[in-house]
Amino acid sequence: MKILLLNGPNLNMLGLREPEKYGNQTLSYIEEELNKKAKNLDVELTCKQTNHEGALIEEIQQANGKFDGIILNAGGYTHTSVALRDAIAAVSTPIVEIHLTNIHGREDFRHNSLISPVCIGQISGFGAYSYDLGLNAIVEYVNKKSLNN
Amino acid sequence: MKILLLNGPNLNMLGLREPEKYGNQTLSYIEEELNKKAKNLDVELTCKQTNHEGALIEEIQQANGKFDGIILNAGGYTHTSVALRDAIAAVSTPIVEIHLTNIHGREDFRHNSLISPVCIGQISGFGAYSYDLGLNAIVEYVNKKSLNN
Amino acid sequence: MKILLLNGPNLNMLGLREPEKYGNQTLSYIEEELNKKAKNLDVELTCKQTNHEGALIEEIQQANGKFDGIILNAGGYTHTSVALRDAIAAVSTPIVEIHLTNIHGREDFRHNSLISPVCIGQISGFGAYSYDLGLNAIVEYVNKKSLNN
Amino acid sequence: MKILLLNGPNLNMLGLREPEKYGNQTLSYIEEELNKKAKNLDVELTCKQTNHEGALIEEIQQANGKFDGIILNAGGYTHTSVALRDAIAAVSTPIVEIHLTNIHGREDFRHNSLISPVCIGQISGFGAYSYDLGLNAIVEYVNKKSLNN
Amino acid sequence: MKILLLNGPNLNMLGLREPEKYGNQTLSYIEEELNKKAKNLDVELTCKQTNHEGALIEEIQQANGKFDGIILNAGGYTHTSVALRDAIAAVSTPIVEIHLTNIHGREDFRHNSLISPVCIGQISGFGAYSYDLGLNAIVEYVNKKSLNN
Amino acid sequence: MKILLLNGPNLNMLGLREPEKYGNQTLSYIEEELNKKAKNLDVELTCKQTNHEGALIEEIQQANGKFDGIILNAGGYTHTSVALRDAIAAVSTPIVEIHLTNIHGREDFRHNSLISPVCIGQISGFGAYSYDLGLNAIVEYVNKKSLNN
Amino acid sequence: MKILLLNGPNLNMLGLREPEKYGNQTLSYIEEELNKKAKNLDVELTCKQTNHEGALIEEIQQANGKFDGIILNAGGYTHTSVALRDAIAAVSTPIVEIHLTNIHGREDFRHNSLISPVCIGQISGFGAYSYDLGLNAIVEYVNKKSLNN
Amino acid sequence: MKILLLNGPNLNMLGLREPEKYGNQTLSYIEEELNKKAKNLDVELTCKQTNHEGALIEEIQQANGKFDGIILNAGGYTHTSVALRDAIAAVSTPIVEIHLTNIHGREDFRHNSLISPVCIGQISGFGAYSYDLGLNAIVEYVNKKSLNN
Amino acid sequence: MKILLLNGPNLNMLGLREPEKYGNQTLSYIEEELNKKAKNLDVELTCKQTNHEGALIEEIQQANGKFDGIILNAGGYTHTSVALRDAIAAVSTPIVEIHLTNIHGREDFRHNSLISPVCIGQISGFGAYSYDLGLNAIVEYVNKKSLNN
Amino acid sequence: MKILLLNGPNLNMLGLREPEKYGNQTLSYIEEELNKKAKNLDVELTCKQTNHEGALIEEIQQANGKFDGIILNAGGYTHTSVALRDAIAAVSTPIVEIHLTNIHGREDFRHNSLISPVCIGQISGFGAYSYDLGLNAIVEYVNKKSLNN
Amino acid sequence: MKILLLNGPNLNMLGLREPEKYGNQTLSYIEEELNKKAKNLDVELTCKQTNHEGALIEEIQQANGKFDGIILNAGGYTHTSVALRDAIAAVSTPIVEIHLTNIHGREDFRHNSLISPVCIGQISGFGAYSYDLGLNAIVEYVNKKSLNN
Amino acid sequence: MKILLLNGPNLNMLGLREPEKYGNQTLSYIEEELNKKAKNLDVELTCKQTNHEGALIEEIQQANGKFDGIILNAGGYTHTSVALRDAIAAVSTPIVEIHLTNIHGREDFRHNSLISPVCIGQISGFGAYSYDLGLNAIVEYVNKKSLNN
Repeated sequence: MKILLLNGPNLNMLGLREPEKYGNQTLSYIEEELNKKAKNLDVELTCKQTNHEGALIEEIQQANGKFDGIILNAGGYTHTSVALRDAIAAVSTPIVEIHLTNIHGREDFRHNSLISPVCIGQISGFGAYSYDLGLNAIVEYVNKKSLNN
Repeated sequence: MKILLLNGPNLNMLGLREPEKYGNQTLSYIEEELNKKAKNLDVELTCKQTNHEGALIEEIQQANGKFDGIILNAGGYTHTSVALRDAIAAVSTPIVEIHLTNIHGREDFRHNSLISPVCIGQISGFGAYSYDLGLNAIVEYVNKKSLNN
Repeated sequence: MKILLLNGPNLNMLGLREPEKYGNQTLSYIEEELNKKAKNLDVELTCKQTNHEGALIEEIQQANGKFDGIILNAGGYTHTSVALRDAIAAVSTPIVEIHLTNIHGREDFRHNSLISPVCIGQISGFGAYSYDLGLNAIVEYVNKKSLNN
Repeated sequence: MKILLLNGPNLNMLGLREPEKYGNQTLSYIEEELNKKAKNLDVELTCKQTNHEGALIEEIQQANGKFDGIILNAGGYTHTSVALRDAIAAVSTPIVEIHLTNIHGREDFRHNSLISPVCIGQISGFGAYSYDLGLNAIVEYVNKKSLNN
Repeated sequence: MKILLLNGPNLNMLGLREPEKYGNQTLSYIEEELNKKAKNLDVELTCKQTNHEGALIEEIQQANGKFDGIILNAGGYTHTSVALRDAIAAVSTPIVEIHLTNIHGREDFRHNSLISPVCIGQISGFGAYSYDLGLNAIVEYVNKKSLNN
Repeated sequence: MKILLLNGPNLNMLGLREPEKYGNQTLSYIEEELNKKAKNLDVELTCKQTNHEGALIEEIQQANGKFDGIILNAGGYTHTSVALRDAIAAVSTPIVEIHLTNIHGREDFRHNSLISPVCIGQISGFGAYSYDLGLNAIVEYVNKKSLNN
Repeated sequence: MKILLLNGPNLNMLGLREPEKYGNQTLSYIEEELNKKAKNLDVELTCKQTNHEGALIEEIQQANGKFDGIILNAGGYTHTSVALRDAIAAVSTPIVEIHLTNIHGREDFRHNSLISPVCIGQISGFGAYSYDLGLNAIVEYVNKKSLNN
Repeated sequence: MKILLLNGPNLNMLGLREPEKYGNQTLSYIEEELNKKAKNLDVELTCKQTNHEGALIEEIQQANGKFDGIILNAGGYTHTSVALRDAIAAVSTPIVEIHLTNIHGREDFRHNSLISPVCIGQISGFGAYSYDLGLNAIVEYVNKKSLNN
Repeated sequence: MKILLLNGPNLNMLGLREPEKYGNQTLSYIEEELNKKAKNLDVELTCKQTNHEGALIEEIQQANGKFDGIILNAGGYTHTSVALRDAIAAVSTPIVEIHLTNIHGREDFRHNSLISPVCIGQISGFGAYSYDLGLNAIVEYVNKKSLNN
Repeated sequence: MKILLLNGPNLNMLGLREPEKYGNQTLSYIEEELNKKAKNLDVELTCKQTNHEGALIEEIQQANGKFDGIILNAGGYTHTSVALRDAIAAVSTPIVEIHLTNIHGREDFRHNSLISPVCIGQISGFGAYSYDLGLNAIVEYVNKKSLNN
Repeated sequence: MKILLLNGPNLNMLGLREPEKYGNQTLSYIEEELNKKAKNLDVELTCKQTNHEGALIEEIQQANGKFDGIILNAGGYTHTSVALRDAIAAVSTPIVEIHLTNIHGREDFRHNSLISPVCIGQISGFGAYSYDLGLNAIVEYVNKKSLNN
Repeated sequence: MKILLLNGPNLNMLGLREPEKYGNQTLSYIEEELNKKAKNLDVELTCKQTNHEGALIEEIQQANGKFDGIILNAGGYTHTSVALRDAIAAVSTPIVEIHLTNIHGREDFRHNSLISPVCIGQISGFGAYSYDLGLNAIVEYVNKKSLNN
């Protein structure tokens, strides 16, 4: 099984940026740890990060057919990008939406997620562990789908 | 570790109620399956369900000190109950909010969760597997917290 | 044919409560009168009243399979209960929503009915006679449905 | 007793228009059937239909004193016409508002009825049978009123 | 004079729950202290607490005729319960609405009180002393009313 | 000088309709009285009334070039008709908007006037005397304009 | 008959301030012209202007019993002052609200008038001639009222 | 192929009305020019205009089965008429919505089109040339549809 | 202990203004009665009233350090004055907000209090007795605070 | 005449993405077909597509002076990009806004177009044929403009 | 060059009022420091402060012709005063709006400035240094304007 | 001291784009002039411009530690980019927000700045001189901060 972990804007700043909110671990540390867990599940994990909305869109377009699923932390674009939503709706690859913080308990403009209705589900608020849960969720989803086919 | 699984209104109808939306598994089947996974994690799981807002509030009040964490699916009260939110804020037991369906992709009145800001995090949209993810999330949270003390 | 008449919060106060708004007849008088009309239509009518949201939900859940239809006056829960709406959607028993007063001509917070979209239809504003119309409506609906099967 | 059945815009299309939503019966069939039921109740029923807001207003103005009550299905003008509302408030003839479909379960702009607060009550969602219920409701209202005088 | 002190959801947690917001005194301590002051005013005070919306409604219904006035802290139901509002409007017993915290200075969803328009007046923000002010207010009101009769 | 007095829907009911709100004088009486005052001012007054939005639009279109000014009471169409607004904007004849009642002190949906921004000015709340003020206002306006040319 | 003409903030700038919007006449010129017309109607006119909200309130309070009516141009306070509204409601002297410009055709925050519901009526959009219409309106109102007593 | 060109309120004023906004060509000139283009496309074009909402509704009802498509400029009714929308939904004839001006760049109340969701598409902002584009659009649509049958 | 009683706009009209809403007692009578009660509590009471927003602000600024607490009835400025709110936040003197009427049961624009979040608490709806409760509340607050120091 | 066809995010997915909504033709097929039609009109067509908001902005900036007009399908950026709107306003090249689907009949967040007010006009809902209409519209516009110069 | 520094409500409390928000410097200290900088720029600076909305309006009216520019910190009136806005629009003296704190990062009711659209520009968030920037801004503006004349 | 001047979308069009709104100076001219002033203040100024949201985010991330402060004109992204806001919050470099035009006096969608709450302060409306004020503001801020350390 091939899974893409896709991180959006400012997540390259993890560990440096507001650690009291986002934790002390850097993105590369999180990616490495997740890679180990993926291997235990026989999953081949590819990790990408970009700050560009257009690049995020193209990663999703190109993942179509190449990956079995995507774990997506779209950062600030979660709340503002109709174009990103359209990209997710345009591909058949299933996508799990994750967030480090509990976006429902923060500023008003973070409560609304434009991409939620076109993702399978949402996980938010568990810090770096949100990535673990996201990995489990997408693997479970892909397994169940292949059983049904 | 002792965890309470608390299900709110209409979740006793699982398997019978709109199966195309909520799946075919009954609540007792889900509870049994979750119990097996809990045992593997050395967790003692207690399962309760109630359709009464007041009873839900009292279960949370009484869990204080008796349980290490709560997995809560508050059903329709998620969106309307300030009293439930106050109960969650009143106890020190950590609570994970879960939903079977992706509430962000349904009717407008389901987008807003009154209890999210006082829970640790939210998991929604993965069907019965949301319970598995919720169990993992609360166990991870409790373990990390006890490490820090 | 078996029909359940289900009355929600404060309807036990009928006749005592704001008579200029709700009329002088007590609930038991209304129930008796409706019972006579039901008998003329060969309908077995069961009457229940509760002030508890959770109890209302459970009456609806348990009516499933036991009754052919429900006449529901959900009182104040009409406007605030997502959990009640979920219960109605969860059962296959058809439900007619009735109100003594014309809720569309009262305070703003009474204009919106959360349960309307999952009921067959709504009757409001005819005082105690709303119950008669509700009985006729549910009987007609059940008869037509059984004809089609 | 003399009752006016007044149908507004597009109700002349009944049976032709979106039958899965509005049913297969034509307006003239519904009028004939209602006429039979009216005769059984010793009611003289007059049936009119118009697509013009101004004509609807004038029918209501002229019904004043000539009819004992009106059954009104104002169609799309229900949600937009302050002038129609003023006409209803201007006459002393009691008016029952009916709708074929459950307007509370459709598009947002159909949830609000400008005429509800000046009608006696509202019946919506029972298809052609809404007319029967409307007839019963207005007859009951007129009878009770004449008893009180 | 007989007065009912009625406390709603989570007020049984007083002293334990968020003490920096709600103070250190338990509900039973507050009730005892208020009882002493009541005796000095020749008032017979009865104290009840419930977490159930339906039970709150029934306490108010049954207080009708048995008590001269009610001091009501409806907790979270203050902001969400139309049914509670209807119960208050249904009885002739005067009711004073009180709150420990200044609800106008907290979250948006606490600014609106559905029950205020049907209570005599509102007292909020004085901690446990809000109960003392509530007692004075209801006693004054009842005395003045009996003078006028 | 030639002035058109144009009355919209339900104003033919004046004197009969809700007299406590609109007064006891019939429209023809008001028109006669206004005619006398118009003659004193050397104004030729033409009076029309219609309940039809389309007819109102056409009266305004045809007044263009034939009348020096219009006194318009558009009744309920004031608040809902973009088409009427377009008609007023399409002609060069100056128009004064009048209302019998103070529309700003009535229901919310009467506060907003779609036609105000394209009329010269608005007079509301003086009962039948609003027509006198409207006549004075339009005469003054036409006189001043002809002076400037 | 004694009438008070009361002008609010910035109306002392008339003639100087944005003449394309408010005209070229100074306030004292308008007051003199209105005085002549008042004399013809046997009215004793008193003219005051203030830029202070509190002073406007006190002028209205002190007019009570001393004047038969008030012509009020409250300027910018029209849209923001609840205290001014309370003052108008507190006195029995009838008040006519006038505006030089058509406030309904300007910025959004000028569409709403807080004082309209407690004035007899509103005249807006006729430039300096709004004062003439206001004088006629208040004189008519006072005369009719004294006829009825 | 038979196409109906249907123009709504105030479009009979074209060329006279606000030419800087709507252009200098009269409606009959536009109709003649469009007729020539229609002939080149072997289309039989029928042109109608009415200021009456009810008449517009009836034209659409009667076009059903008689025309292959409709080009509709509904003028001010675009934004306010639920009844017109219902008429469009009630017929199977495809309808193209056109506007002379760019309604999205004008007043707020013109941004929302009630009829858009039941038309095939919308063309706005190209002046009289919007009619040409509308003709092309409906012809293309009808051709493609007949190919598929 | 030194307490300032500060009354805002129109409260000098008490007893004269809308007595069915505000009662028959004049402000000076209320002040005298309150003075007697203050003396019993060993409180030195100073009473001021002003209709000017700026004067209200300056009274609060100057009370800083000279008084132990303020009882404030800000009248209409309660709902509109950000400047008054800033003045209250700028001083360390504790302030109790009171209202004669139940502002939550009146017009919408009276539901929101700009000053509530910066006062200790709010008392509304008890007529002149609101002043007594306000006196008790501020005395209790000051006493408890001095105990803690 | 030189025209730029500019396609925004996800339009490179045409034919692959949700074909029931967007049709089966790929973007390159649409571009080729449009090219043939352009040649018949003696128009030199240049086709570009990008998923990047910034790149879209720069294409528009650089088109200034090089192209006579632009056909723009901005995809999801239509509804969210103020920066794109500024770019359009910054160049003198006329731009026609097109959409494949009827954006007025889809989700709420697609109803509002930020770029409409600065484009000449909008065409939406005709599938791939929207491009043909857009080509005709821009050619007509450029021709007419050059005639006027 | 003559510049007026005009400070509104509560700015006389600077240094005393919430120093963590507004800094430790008193208003007179800030005025003295600004005076020195003004002298270096050959500017004659006059400093005024008032807590009264009406007085602020009159200062602005009287500055007309006497000063070359105004630096205005309107405090809480910034967000509520239409009358102040009208005064600024009524004079030709250019005005720079300044704020000590970043009003865009505070409570919602401080985000909107009624006076911004009629001032030249706004400076907010730099503490006492906002005054320096305001002085530079107004001097630059006046110099450039006099160059152009 | 090292300062970064960062310009966002469309600011490369300065001098060419809508000069009546944005002035005649090109961006490179403004940058040169600002460079001279920076040298006088012993500031090393680096100037960058980009139309890409992602590039803007990365410039801010990389400025962290390399620059003492940033002057940011984010153009259209000011109002729509949560991702940009997150980048600003993620770095410790202080940022001053500037705008050429007075954004508070333009279209509604420009009134709200998403980045204001995480910048030190905002300067808007002074044309190219906004950059000078921004330079002074950031230099003052950095100097004061280094004094405090």
